[in-house]
Amino acid sequence: MRRIRYSVVASLDGYIAGPNGEYDWIIHDPDFDFNEVFAQFDTILVGRRTFDTMVAAQRTTMPGMKTMVFSRTLKPEDHPQVTIIAKDHRQTLLALKASAGKDIWLFGGGSLFRSLAEHGLVDTLEVSIMPILLGAGTPLSPDLTNRIKLSLTAHKVKRTGVVSLEYAIQ
Amino acid sequence: MRRIRYSVVASLDGYIAGPNGEYDWIIHDPDFDFNEVFAQFDTILVGRRTFDTMVAAQRTTMPGMKTMVFSRTLKPEDHPQVTIIAKDHRQTLLALKASAGKDIWLFGGGSLFRSLAEHGLVDTLEVSIMPILLGAGTPLSPDLTNRIKLSLTAHKVKRTGVVSLEYAIQ
Repeated sequence: MRRIRYSVVASLDGYIAGPNGEYDWIIHDPDFDFNEVFAQFDTILVGRRTFDTMVAAQRTTMPGMKTMVFSRTLKPEDHPQVTIIAKDHRQTLLALKASAGKDIWLFGGGSLFRSLAEHGLVDTLEVSIMPILLGAGTPLSPDLTNRIKLSLTAHKVKRTGVVSLEYAIQ
Repeated sequence: MRRIRYSVVASLDGYIAGPNGEYDWIIHDPDFDFNEVFAQFDTILVGRRTFDTMVAAQRTTMPGMKTMVFSRTLKPEDHPQVTIIAKDHRQTLLALKASAGKDIWLFGGGSLFRSLAEHGLVDTLEVSIMPILLGAGTPLSPDLTNRIKLSLTAHKVKRTGVVSLEYAIQ
């Protein structure tokens, strides 16, 4: 089974973007190997709001990856470069997990994570914690109906003070 | 100079208490040496809301520690066992830091941290991150006017999956 991995960068106080969508607080790690990370995945999953920021940045796809966008309102004909999933998330994702391929990157945001996690569809949570408090912004895991228990499976502390933690979702 | 240290337990998504003030998600670490931690401090600082929970729990003081409560409304005569600071926080704390003694524990909550950090009075932030997402609750650092930059100074990963991170506040 392919895994769905929610892999994000967060502030120490649990925000994945600033109050106005800022990402300028993210430290670029000279040791970070993009190729190694990208090689693990072939699909990214994004919610509609995250997709909006990708459209604004004119970056709706990543090399070697298929982009799947969860939205009831976007029209597939307006965004032919991506796959829009309007309904039956659970069935679509169960089929995707069971098919052949690499891991699946739940790229963001928090609302999509909540919705998929509440259906038991997310396997891991991988957070790179930046050494900053934002005090407000887009939460890592907004408005959960139930708490989500985690098991720490790996950790790495970088020279930059960034702490990367990997958890299995229980 | 004595240091003021904001030392708290938080969920991975940055909450120090659940939406109804719950603390039942905190894992009790068999390796945690209370005596060692308590020996580093002789004063605890608490905000009014945190003090209310201490009053409800009938635990407004800790052995060997002086409790200082920041409140404009509480009456000193109602709480003779603690010191109530109603005004001039900054002067009071600068004098406290300059006096002889052990470190000072900013025990909670987030609003008191914000107020003191914005005056440049907090030296360190020490967070024990529990392996859980609460999705809502009392934030670690609510409504900051400005971001707070941190420098990672120490880290420890416990057998329980709890990750303890220590930061200097820049």
